[in-house]
Amino acid sequence: MPKVGIDAIYIHTPELYVDTTELALARGEDPKHFTDGIGITKFAIPPANEDQASMAATAAYRLMRMHNIKPEDIFRIDTPTESGLDASRALVSDVIGMLEQIYGKGSFSHILGYEQKFACVSGMERLLDTSAWFAAGWNSRKYALVLVTDIAKYELKSKEEPTQGAAAAALLIGENPRLLEVIPGAVGSGLRHEKGDFKKPGGRTIALVDTIGKGRSYAAYLSEMKQAWINFSLASAKIGLVNPSKNESLVDLIDRAGFHNPHKKMVLAAFASLLIHEWRNLPKWSSITEKIGPEPSRAGIDDVSFYMSKEYNDYRRKFMVLPEVTEYFEQRLGSSLVAPEIIGNCYAASVFVGLDSIFENDKDDLSSKIIALCGYGSGSHALIQATRVSENYKEIKAKLDLMKRLVHRRKISVEEYEALHSGKVTIDDQPVLSKPRFVLSKIGQHGTAEEGNREYIFVE
Amino acid sequence: MPKVGIDAIYIHTPELYVDTTELALARGEDPKHFTDGIGITKFAIPPANEDQASMAATAAYRLMRMHNIKPEDIFRIDTPTESGLDASRALVSDVIGMLEQIYGKGSFSHILGYEQKFACVSGMERLLDTSAWFAAGWNSRKYALVLVTDIAKYELKSKEEPTQGAAAAALLIGENPRLLEVIPGAVGSGLRHEKGDFKKPGGRTIALVDTIGKGRSYAAYLSEMKQAWINFSLASAKIGLVNPSKNESLVDLIDRAGFHNPHKKMVLAAFASLLIHEWRNLPKWSSITEKIGPEPSRAGIDDVSFYMSKEYNDYRRKFMVLPEVTEYFEQRLGSSLVAPEIIGNCYAASVFVGLDSIFENDKDDLSSKIIALCGYGSGSHALIQATRVSENYKEIKAKLDLMKRLVHRRKISVEEYEALHSGKVTIDDQPVLSKPRFVLSKIGQHGTAEEGNREYIFVE
Repeated sequence: MPKVGIDAIYIHTPELYVDTTELALARGEDPKHFTDGIGITKFAIPPANEDQASMAATAAYRLMRMHNIKPEDIFRIDTPTESGLDASRALVSDVIGMLEQIYGKGSFSHILGYEQKFACVSGMERLLDTSAWFAAGWNSRKYALVLVTDIAKYELKSKEEPTQGAAAAALLIGENPRLLEVIPGAVGSGLRHEKGDFKKPGGRTIALVDTIGKGRSYAAYLSEMKQAWINFSLASAKIGLVNPSKNESLVDLIDRAGFHNPHKKMVLAAFASLLIHEWRNLPKWSSITEKIGPEPSRAGIDDVSFYMSKEYNDYRRKFMVLPEVTEYFEQRLGSSLVAPEIIGNCYAASVFVGLDSIFENDKDDLSSKIIALCGYGSGSHALIQATRVSENYKEIKAKLDLMKRLVHRRKISVEEYEALHSGKVTIDDQPVLSKPRFVLSKIGQHGTAEEGNREYIFVE
Repeated sequence: MPKVGIDAIYIHTPELYVDTTELALARGEDPKHFTDGIGITKFAIPPANEDQASMAATAAYRLMRMHNIKPEDIFRIDTPTESGLDASRALVSDVIGMLEQIYGKGSFSHILGYEQKFACVSGMERLLDTSAWFAAGWNSRKYALVLVTDIAKYELKSKEEPTQGAAAAALLIGENPRLLEVIPGAVGSGLRHEKGDFKKPGGRTIALVDTIGKGRSYAAYLSEMKQAWINFSLASAKIGLVNPSKNESLVDLIDRAGFHNPHKKMVLAAFASLLIHEWRNLPKWSSITEKIGPEPSRAGIDDVSFYMSKEYNDYRRKFMVLPEVTEYFEQRLGSSLVAPEIIGNCYAASVFVGLDSIFENDKDDLSSKIIALCGYGSGSHALIQATRVSENYKEIKAKLDLMKRLVHRRKISVEEYEALHSGKVTIDDQPVLSKPRFVLSKIGQHGTAEEGNREYIFVE
């Protein structure tokens, strides 16, 4: 069975951003509530001439160019998203249309591809689904592309407003990957029917959501992630992934974790809840309870309600500020949180932004290290997959430049942001920022035969 | 490498139907235009207490019960659809919620699953994606479910009105399948950026479409299917699938074809265009041109425009009524068309309704025969996969009873249909037809916290 996984990655994120300190002041909030309480200091916002499809195509083209990949090297392209532009058509069709402006008409006609959705977890699922084709030897060509693309948009002045953001992650999938290998069998899922916490029913294009605070969505993330971890532990034990000692758990032997990241505080809360779960039966737990007391009782309540309870949240917060815990967090999560904190939420792409962030910001030699990718989608589905960093990953790492590009973004004022958000800025008014890229040039008007048809141009 | 494919299938289709002769009369049309010109004599329409999710769950439960499958036997459930009920949440979440009413809360918590979309081709893609997990040995349990579910709904009095319909196909995927094996490598794709022919942009829940007549959507189907066939031919030659003689083409050695079926005439047109493509360089073509003359010239026009041209359509129609062609059609396609003609269009599910129809209506022994599954989705993507009927398929065939169930449906009048279509019938007014099934009992109202939340009950 060949090694399969991520051969290369390219993150594209819009180059306009909102400073959440300025946003907080405009909203009459304490800036610390946004920057620390939520954990997003800046969020990317697409200019009017950029959308989910142009972001994906730009990421794909830049990745292909950087690694000298031709359309004939690729057998499939998939576009996981939860902010698709059409309820029937797949976003990949528009992406192909753009890429063919470069590579020639018909150059992608042999491709398999579609769009998939389970809120924010679809990118993780697609990484595995596409990798399975290679593991099966079903791939007819050397590579596949997974283009995860999402724009997180909430209502102006809503609680979720500071947790917006946008990014597309282009993943090149193939055999003997130069960056990251999927470890077969080291996978765990948690799935539960949850209907109310995050939704776009009946044709809505902006989500109805309750992600901030101690709401149901927050608790569902924690609950499903733990369920997935339980299944991941069973699966990992079966394949002998690691050998914990008497005072260790699986999580202690995972070198890095890259979580779905709606905002930093939610990731820290999810990781804390995993740690409590993993450690409570180990000898070392007694030193924790000596400091913060025993866990609150779960008697008579279900998992989600427990995670929503004040008692649990108070306890978790005490746990999270213990020095041994903050140090533990910093080592395992720290590098994954750097880029997301200044890009904001980007739904299904966020776990891959976190992955890129690990490679660009981690100080350690990551060769052969285990990274657990922890995806999550409201509704609710968590998916944890262990991966192993390739021995020669530095060849790819050397080409990653997301952090550099983030420095050169353009800050927009709260007024500019509000105009953009409200659709008061037309496509033609917008700057073309870094090149090469695809930009949206026209959207067919409602009530015409062209309704919803999007035209894109390539700018070099 | 183990054999992988469809172990069992169950089609659920709503049990109310509209007679298209009555509809034609009500619309002032010649009934033959609907029954023969389009090729749909009846179409299924869901009662107000049935939706895409309840259809999928009903199909899944009946399949599981029939084959004694338990949740712990299943490692993933996916719900391809192009008429999903939420732009972020995955339909599979609601399906899990229903199935857990039977199997117990948490009984599906280990499952991987999501929803995917590329207009009508997503079911075909998911069949392959899920099968790849088994071929890779990545499946952690014995089975997976693919629940393809769609409701085709167009505006009242639109051209497309007679091509509505609805169905869910539950596919049990596994190793050494008792029904149908996916032949590895015998696959071909055709993908092209097409933006205008079928779409639901900007939150629309009813498609803007041009599928009837000689429109662009029709031509795109023909064009992509031919492109996929070309790639399928190359792939099939590579693995030595069949050995055509000098006067044969690959299509002649495919025993049966199951097409995506928006309506019968479109399938016949697509198959005819494939035949013309396949035969034009064979010795036997001269006997065709003796009867109907040479093909019109393609000079200076692209493939889609050619397929839209009057010259081509006139020529194809002459070809289609040649006795040797109608006989050829009958043998290879006839059994696949029986059920779709009285169910109507069911988007992504239609190719599997056609497959079930083959098994229930074909007079021949199909053991070890090759069936080409030919999926298509607007936008545009065709996907052709060769499959082989399992040697002992009759064990599963004996349990298929779709044709019997279709006899016991309830016809509704055009007035009743219009009331149902317009949302004037409430959930509570609706009959519970065959049991066991899941029915929709409540939809959260717009503007409330429950907006879009759907409640379902199980009726035994």
